[in-house]
Amino acid sequence: MHIVRATAGVRVPATSGNLGPGFDCLGLAHNVWDEVHVRLTTGSTRVHILGEGRGALPTDDSHLIVRAMRRGFDAAGLPQAGIELNCRNGIAQGRGLGSSAAAVVAGLMLVRGLVDEPELFDDDAVLRLATEFEGHPDNAAPALHGGAVLSWMTDEGPKAAKIDVAKEIKTTLLVPEAELATEAARSVLPSDVPHGDAAFNASRAAMLVLALQGRPDLLLEATGDRLHQRYRADSMPESAEVLRALREAEWPAVVSGAGPSVLVFDKLDRRTRDLLAARGFRSITAGIGSGAHLIEESR
Amino acid sequence: MHIVRATAGVRVPATSGNLGPGFDCLGLAHNVWDEVHVRLTTGSTRVHILGEGRGALPTDDSHLIVRAMRRGFDAAGLPQAGIELNCRNGIAQGRGLGSSAAAVVAGLMLVRGLVDEPELFDDDAVLRLATEFEGHPDNAAPALHGGAVLSWMTDEGPKAAKIDVAKEIKTTLLVPEAELATEAARSVLPSDVPHGDAAFNASRAAMLVLALQGRPDLLLEATGDRLHQRYRADSMPESAEVLRALREAEWPAVVSGAGPSVLVFDKLDRRTRDLLAARGFRSITAGIGSGAHLIEESR
Repeated sequence: MHIVRATAGVRVPATSGNLGPGFDCLGLAHNVWDEVHVRLTTGSTRVHILGEGRGALPTDDSHLIVRAMRRGFDAAGLPQAGIELNCRNGIAQGRGLGSSAAAVVAGLMLVRGLVDEPELFDDDAVLRLATEFEGHPDNAAPALHGGAVLSWMTDEGPKAAKIDVAKEIKTTLLVPEAELATEAARSVLPSDVPHGDAAFNASRAAMLVLALQGRPDLLLEATGDRLHQRYRADSMPESAEVLRALREAEWPAVVSGAGPSVLVFDKLDRRTRDLLAARGFRSITAGIGSGAHLIEESR
Repeated sequence: MHIVRATAGVRVPATSGNLGPGFDCLGLAHNVWDEVHVRLTTGSTRVHILGEGRGALPTDDSHLIVRAMRRGFDAAGLPQAGIELNCRNGIAQGRGLGSSAAAVVAGLMLVRGLVDEPELFDDDAVLRLATEFEGHPDNAAPALHGGAVLSWMTDEGPKAAKIDVAKEIKTTLLVPEAELATEAARSVLPSDVPHGDAAFNASRAAMLVLALQGRPDLLLEATGDRLHQRYRADSMPESAEVLRALREAEWPAVVSGAGPSVLVFDKLDRRTRDLLAARGFRSITAGIGSGAHLIEESR
């Protein structure tokens, strides 16, 4: 495999992991994108950022996309090079929208876009390397494949299976202003849970697959969860209250990833969106996204 | 609603509840049947049994089908009558094959077969009454609907959703000579389980839906379970050993219901079937069954 191009571009979607009962396994891609273009140089690393994260994200070799590219070069046996990135970020960071998985997948996909044998740097290879960065494939798998994806770890690495989402399934993302560190959120989960709660989540995870495939009538029941959201409520009280209120009004709402964003499997009416806006939650009705893909020209 | 016929007949399939990760929620119907015919009389209850349970099951009003019919008459506001049953049982009792659910569903379906407005005694009504008898809908739901079924309890009663099983999914039932009381099996489950085990089962339950729908390559991984089978192993050591050996050889095997039968999602080769026969396990390759249905004539 050789680098045969000096430029490449990629679009990678936002994702929600931990979908309701699908803790650590069910993820969904959104029609919300980071777009990244790379130019290989003989100089030092430069990162230009427009949109989300401008002025906040690092612009040197510590930028996650640069680190992912360097890891990709190494994994493919390619030489390192100077990297100049142009990022147009649509995915807010620190909101449970998979921005870090998107960055890692973007970097690895850009490596694919630069080489003569992209088939040697296929989806399995990208998912494996992305999972090394992330520690889990929950966001990287839907970012890579699009739509709804079940992912899991095996001795041979991460695996993923797509779930065909029916066209009638609509989504609304509710994104609060506040950020939340994922580590803090993860640490409040208990080591043991009641057997009944475990059985509950198994049944609802199976039900959520059926619901997404075309049983929207099941979505409220199928988004029930007893394994993670309740334990993280204290670390994001506003999101927990929004989730509680929405579900009480029979909206099939879940926390997106480890929060604090909330995902509703429906369109919300104007009044509900206005109420949420008054609480600091922006409604995004972009819909379900396809997977990461290389693009030809900077737009 | 009035009783307008003096005879009715029904066929009800064997079922496996607790399918792998789908503890208390995922069930499957088998192409193995109990066939029951009823004649209303002015005399006392009589039950004739051929096949499984002959000489062992009660032949008076305590027979489960008779009790289910009497409950059905009451629920429908119908008068009681003398009941004469002719049973041809293909479902072995006490083997985790749903024989009691089949009996209850048979009795309720027979009531439907005797009345002038069977639509008032529909599947929802039968499932609700059957769940009262059984305490859970895991076996009654697939016995009623056929194929693979996800069932769960709500405040309004039991609910069920069918899973379309791909034609390429094959099954083998391994039925041991020994019976096992379901109560004893259920009592050994722990009150709490590790959070990681709960997350594992949620992901595998979702995966099992995808596998049954047409990803047989996922069946081995998708039949993984950490919530019930390991805890019941001591109460059925032979079945536990067969399960362990089959899974180690990469057969997607699960315990059927609370055991001791074992269900394999595949055809077994002759040598494996012979080895199992030597251990006292009969192989049944009848395939997946449709749901309970009324039949016209005694055959």
